[in-house]
Amino acid sequence: MIQTAIMGYGTVGGGVTKVIENNAGEIRKKLGEALNVKKILVRRFRDCPYRARMTDDFRDIEQDPEIRVVVETIGGVAPAYEYTKRALLAGKHVVTANKQLVAEKGCELMETAREKNVHYLFEASVGGGIPILHPLTECMSANRIQEVYGILNGTSNYILTRMVRNGATFEGALSEAQARGYAEADPTADVDGLDAGRKICILADLAFGHQVNPSDVPAEGIRGITLRDVRIARRGGYRVKLLGRAVRLPKGHTAYVAPHLIPETWPVANVEDVFNAIVVRGNAVGEVMFYGRGAGEMPTASACVADVMECLTSQQQKVIWSPDPAGFRNPAELETRHYFRIDGSLTDAVRAFGEVEALREDDETSFLTERMSGAEASERAGRLRGIGVNVLSRMRALS
Amino acid sequence: MIQTAIMGYGTVGGGVTKVIENNAGEIRKKLGEALNVKKILVRRFRDCPYRARMTDDFRDIEQDPEIRVVVETIGGVAPAYEYTKRALLAGKHVVTANKQLVAEKGCELMETAREKNVHYLFEASVGGGIPILHPLTECMSANRIQEVYGILNGTSNYILTRMVRNGATFEGALSEAQARGYAEADPTADVDGLDAGRKICILADLAFGHQVNPSDVPAEGIRGITLRDVRIARRGGYRVKLLGRAVRLPKGHTAYVAPHLIPETWPVANVEDVFNAIVVRGNAVGEVMFYGRGAGEMPTASACVADVMECLTSQQQKVIWSPDPAGFRNPAELETRHYFRIDGSLTDAVRAFGEVEALREDDETSFLTERMSGAEASERAGRLRGIGVNVLSRMRALS
Repeated sequence: MIQTAIMGYGTVGGGVTKVIENNAGEIRKKLGEALNVKKILVRRFRDCPYRARMTDDFRDIEQDPEIRVVVETIGGVAPAYEYTKRALLAGKHVVTANKQLVAEKGCELMETAREKNVHYLFEASVGGGIPILHPLTECMSANRIQEVYGILNGTSNYILTRMVRNGATFEGALSEAQARGYAEADPTADVDGLDAGRKICILADLAFGHQVNPSDVPAEGIRGITLRDVRIARRGGYRVKLLGRAVRLPKGHTAYVAPHLIPETWPVANVEDVFNAIVVRGNAVGEVMFYGRGAGEMPTASACVADVMECLTSQQQKVIWSPDPAGFRNPAELETRHYFRIDGSLTDAVRAFGEVEALREDDETSFLTERMSGAEASERAGRLRGIGVNVLSRMRALS
Repeated sequence: MIQTAIMGYGTVGGGVTKVIENNAGEIRKKLGEALNVKKILVRRFRDCPYRARMTDDFRDIEQDPEIRVVVETIGGVAPAYEYTKRALLAGKHVVTANKQLVAEKGCELMETAREKNVHYLFEASVGGGIPILHPLTECMSANRIQEVYGILNGTSNYILTRMVRNGATFEGALSEAQARGYAEADPTADVDGLDAGRKICILADLAFGHQVNPSDVPAEGIRGITLRDVRIARRGGYRVKLLGRAVRLPKGHTAYVAPHLIPETWPVANVEDVFNAIVVRGNAVGEVMFYGRGAGEMPTASACVADVMECLTSQQQKVIWSPDPAGFRNPAELETRHYFRIDGSLTDAVRAFGEVEALREDDETSFLTERMSGAEASERAGRLRGIGVNVLSRMRALS
């Protein structure tokens, strides 16, 4: 019997006990031994079938030599960081779904794991149950990764889907998401792009081999998206999606989160509701997409338990990226097309941007520019203001 | 320097040399050493930069103690099986894209690899460059896999896409595919479902842990699909796709290849042209989809080279399924909805099948049945013949 512990007993922690219980047969067949949850670290005790295993003292886990793997589902940096570090130093494998901790401290924790000859694994931190980190680092390891982009936050994708499909406003769609349990009472991390920002940092770390600091990665959410822009995009053959992007540049690399117009024929354009999709572009394999439920109790827990099994069967921890944040460039350097809606005419648009693709023209004008850097688009938008024309909205566009 | 050899120097074999050359920097960084192709086994010598490394004698590879990994891209069973077996017995890792050999002899070859403490890996045999076998067996290992299905053959998907989008006939679309190099002069293996059949066998082996013999798996291709059926399906909100399916049953499991009607809102319904997509349904993770180019020189080669790297860095070969084909059931037992086009009326359809979803009624009638086994659908179709009505076409339908 292999003893494990869970730290934090919320949605994902509860899911981990369920997966270990429901799939005990499968797991035992693959490991050759049963998995058992011996201790659960909680802040407050509560009645449930696992009541007898609960503790509010981390040392009960740290000092139990039988416990070989710890699943951390506390979330956030403190106290998850300290407990993870101490568990690794005590010679225990740690598995986590905590994207914030991995984005900020993952490199250091992997190094600690390597020194103690244990693992620190975090497949569940990006894309929930969708296998993406292992495929990216192992199955695609013969590629030079050019770009990783995707719909990394199910809550904001649900809201955008409602806006497109039902003509809901942002506020209306958010209330609906909250009523269905897809959005927290405080939806900031989801709708303002913070959650997607942490995930794209982890993907960028893995793709480029260097630490990408969350504080360097600009994250714009979906609060500024209007129903009007969504409809104009749709009529023009585009969908509006909140994307995290990590892109290799001629020198270095960049990462950011922002709403984008995407051609409706692209596979990611049709990823709806709470689903996530991550596209990896490698120089040999081309584009590969991974799609599924990016959150939720059971999908995320299934990724955690798979990592537990990997800890127990695979060889030594690799430290997969360098702590050196060298090579990170401001995403304003990155060239894409840009969508603008202005209170001027198409002539004004052309005067500022040169050739454009007009999407709609009435009392306002909506258009797509040619490819240019974000910095140049801003500079040209400044020219509009110089002739008394206001920018009503603006997004990057892929095509 | 790590020495490798390639057996067979066609499209994939050539791609392997390119990936090793183009991405030498990436590969060396990850392995800590450079990869080198020391020998290439060919049937006929030809001029190319690798001319000096070519040999037509397998023993030059078998007896070279420097060669640690062999990439087999010969295809087919003979002589690939013999060379693979001998290479493994000589203590060399073997990596392959050869789905026929893996489907028929994979279990035995993995066992040989395990005995010799080397690897036999075959990620490239299904889905080309799309990571699917590793995610299925590792990242989703905490799941009970309920079903794996997908578009496993790019050539037939290209033909179907042309039929749907451009109103091409099967013959016209096939000629176009051949002109573009997507289909062989002899397209049998692709359009008659044999290629997809081998791939679904490998997926079924991995998903259910028991050998699924290609000879037990009925494979129906796309030759019988008419433009008329494609159009009727489309108007009814369905797409016609050639699917391989491996399904867990209440007792045992089954696998088969056949054209299906799929609701247009399902992600696989929108997988077009030469792209592949594989959906895995696990009891914890739900549905996860993997999408990309399922064939082609560079994607397939990139999967081979990633497997080469895994051989060199991961621990001992696991034998992932049992050679015992126990548990395989005839897919005629499997319940789905069924599409029929008959030369009778809707009343005739209802008389034979009970409640149906009418898709079109004029001089012919097209409809979807309720869920029933293939055997029952055949039995009820027999009743139609009893009242003088002919079945003009028939397919399974998912919804």
